[in-house]
Amino acid sequence: MCFGAHCSGHSTKKDTGSSHCWGPEGSGSRAPAPRGAPGGSPARAPRRSPYLSARGHVAHVLLGSAEEGYAAYHADKYDEESNPDGIINFGTSENKLCFDLMSKRVSQIAKRNMLRNSSLVFILREEVARFLTHYCKAPAPLKAENVIVLNGCGSLFSALATVLCDPGEAVLIATPFYGGITQSVFLYGNVKLVYAYLDSKITGTSTRPFQLTVDKLEKALQDAQAEGVTVRALILLNPQNPLGDIYSLSELQDYLEFAKRHELHVIVDEIYMLSVFDESATFHSVLGMDRLPDPQRTHVMWGISKDFAVSGIRFGTLYTENQDVANAVASLCYFHGVCGPVQHKVAQLLRDRDWINQVYLRANHARLKAAHTYVTDELKTLGVPFLNRNAGFFVWIDFRKYLRTGTFEEEMLLWRRFLDNKVLLSCGKAFECSEPGWFRIIFADKIHRLQLGE
Amino acid sequence: MCFGAHCSGHSTKKDTGSSHCWGPEGSGSRAPAPRGAPGGSPARAPRRSPYLSARGHVAHVLLGSAEEGYAAYHADKYDEESNPDGIINFGTSENKLCFDLMSKRVSQIAKRNMLRNSSLVFILREEVARFLTHYCKAPAPLKAENVIVLNGCGSLFSALATVLCDPGEAVLIATPFYGGITQSVFLYGNVKLVYAYLDSKITGTSTRPFQLTVDKLEKALQDAQAEGVTVRALILLNPQNPLGDIYSLSELQDYLEFAKRHELHVIVDEIYMLSVFDESATFHSVLGMDRLPDPQRTHVMWGISKDFAVSGIRFGTLYTENQDVANAVASLCYFHGVCGPVQHKVAQLLRDRDWINQVYLRANHARLKAAHTYVTDELKTLGVPFLNRNAGFFVWIDFRKYLRTGTFEEEMLLWRRFLDNKVLLSCGKAFECSEPGWFRIIFADKIHRLQLGE
Repeated sequence: MCFGAHCSGHSTKKDTGSSHCWGPEGSGSRAPAPRGAPGGSPARAPRRSPYLSARGHVAHVLLGSAEEGYAAYHADKYDEESNPDGIINFGTSENKLCFDLMSKRVSQIAKRNMLRNSSLVFILREEVARFLTHYCKAPAPLKAENVIVLNGCGSLFSALATVLCDPGEAVLIATPFYGGITQSVFLYGNVKLVYAYLDSKITGTSTRPFQLTVDKLEKALQDAQAEGVTVRALILLNPQNPLGDIYSLSELQDYLEFAKRHELHVIVDEIYMLSVFDESATFHSVLGMDRLPDPQRTHVMWGISKDFAVSGIRFGTLYTENQDVANAVASLCYFHGVCGPVQHKVAQLLRDRDWINQVYLRANHARLKAAHTYVTDELKTLGVPFLNRNAGFFVWIDFRKYLRTGTFEEEMLLWRRFLDNKVLLSCGKAFECSEPGWFRIIFADKIHRLQLGE
Repeated sequence: MCFGAHCSGHSTKKDTGSSHCWGPEGSGSRAPAPRGAPGGSPARAPRRSPYLSARGHVAHVLLGSAEEGYAAYHADKYDEESNPDGIINFGTSENKLCFDLMSKRVSQIAKRNMLRNSSLVFILREEVARFLTHYCKAPAPLKAENVIVLNGCGSLFSALATVLCDPGEAVLIATPFYGGITQSVFLYGNVKLVYAYLDSKITGTSTRPFQLTVDKLEKALQDAQAEGVTVRALILLNPQNPLGDIYSLSELQDYLEFAKRHELHVIVDEIYMLSVFDESATFHSVLGMDRLPDPQRTHVMWGISKDFAVSGIRFGTLYTENQDVANAVASLCYFHGVCGPVQHKVAQLLRDRDWINQVYLRANHARLKAAHTYVTDELKTLGVPFLNRNAGFFVWIDFRKYLRTGTFEEEMLLWRRFLDNKVLLSCGKAFECSEPGWFRIIFADKIHRLQLGE
């Protein structure tokens, strides 16, 4: 089984900092606009093609621009043997530590016992429900009929944005956040994001840098409403990408109560839920809460690409008690289908609790922790500040002291200097970070590549 | 390898007559509206859910309604052993004649030699280009860079509609046509279809029933423009579903010249191109034409589900010389990804020209022809008129003499009478046919099931 390739066309969109290529042109701007380079200033808008619709033009420009880092990487990819002086990719959020375990396991999954047609879909949804019940510590068994399955969480964001919002309406999210969501909700859905800007200052009710508080959500919502923007939902990432934060139960409760007060849907993306690699940290899924404040407006997504280190397998799942939402999303599922053979393999994979617990998660967490320790120790030695967290594949690094005037132009220059030195990172601007100078590095890689990247 | 299941959610959309569940409420109406039953009168619109956007409501209603025939089939599916009195499905356009050949072939495709990452996508596009060059008889080699790959032709219609049209704009198509296209262009794209109505009368420049002529296209375009509708493209199905027509070179030339005159894009769906089962018939791909009238506005789609009898494998491909269109569609490909393992298998499958020509196509065409002959001989014996064509999996049957007053209400009653007698067909209304009384039957099934269906 090949995990390498997932989507095919002229290009692939991956979670690389440099491929997140639109954002606010200034504070408060919410209309996505094409941008020329990661974190850089707006490029001149290319000539509108006579062959495309207005939205087709946006999609076209998006693909053509802003892939500088990723394009450079592909042209000069590091390879131990064939290109030892090539670019090391610390930009794409992939777990490269468990390829051995996963390729062995997937090839073991028997091809006999292949199930036919509708029963296959049903069994997969049953397996997902059982899996989430266990790993999300649900107080009561989750139900197969509340499970939707499709080809990845990007598609889920697209479908949810479309069925929850009408064109031009908006969804609230805190920055910095995984920038691919901007495109996922906009390209088909024409849904905008409204930002609650977090920063590194510890003030007011916050006790840690970039802490999400209800005050900040309230302010962002009020500002949007004052500008006449209709906000329909709140997106929560837990564990958070790129911060690595995981939310406490009381924080979750606060965010969900805030959403309920304003009749906002909450889309909770828990795609890194099993990538919490330190036993001292406890992840709380919203599906594990005793009582959801607004269950009909709470929708939880998860997928296998991160937690099972198989980014080539497009498989995402939505859990929602709301049958109207489930039906509407299912209607769009025709465009986001998962092949029969993949459904079968995923069902088999999720079923084997012993292997997951005793073999896979133990090894994966130990490897993630070792790689994280290696990178953070190096950062300490270099005297570079960072957020020390226990989840995800990334470290959020504070390079502000290397910027003289603290602008995003300087941030981009620094990003490019890394690239010139064969290291691809993601700059904060790609996550709509409001403070210049922050970078995300992916540590879920072999130590020898991490060493090379120094 | 399991071919059975393709898309998973609460339901799957397949090419069944009865699942095409919206259409014009009257001649000239172009706004899709939910309908209660196949070919029936509009159902009362259900209460708008407080949880959904307006377009989410449409998606929700779509899923909930109009699946009567398909639901009945699933509840009482024919099975030789377990349910010999169940419903026989002659509604879904699937080729059930080659499961033996395909399952053997796909399992032979070695799992070793799995290619990594970007090279896999590139090799697949190379293979598709070579394959289309050969089977479309292209005058010069087709280029890999003009090939886009995604998870099925439904997704392709969705992506193309989105990048060629802005919301509310329209695409021209002749009826009867495969009704799933209506949803594919509308659900995400909010693009409407404008109909050129064909009928069984042979008049004017036509020489066969339901013949597509430029006059009819001109009239439909003029009518739409007179109503203020902006038409951006023309869809051609060749071979045509449900008619089974294949277009002559001069017909193709005429349609393409018509489109060029009006600066319309042409989307040519050739998904049944290798399912022309009689040697007396010659299929002409537009990719085989010496000179395309407007190559920058000509976009050709093909997929493997029909011609290779694997409806569970979601794989569709677009060939276009227009790089703006290719880039814009590629940008949407993130939502329509094909898994790495499937890309690998498809590349291997398309590469083996000897097996395709010597083994597969010979057997497939012989089996299709035998099944077609069986069904049409039976129709002749029964004295039921039909269109005798040589392509596709379907026969377009004229049951008008069994309707007393010739209304769509009667057509639906007849459709239901078949279903009560355990035979699922597709009625003409599901294809937006303008004449009541026509039905589509799928003949690509084993003779013993065809016998049972009589």
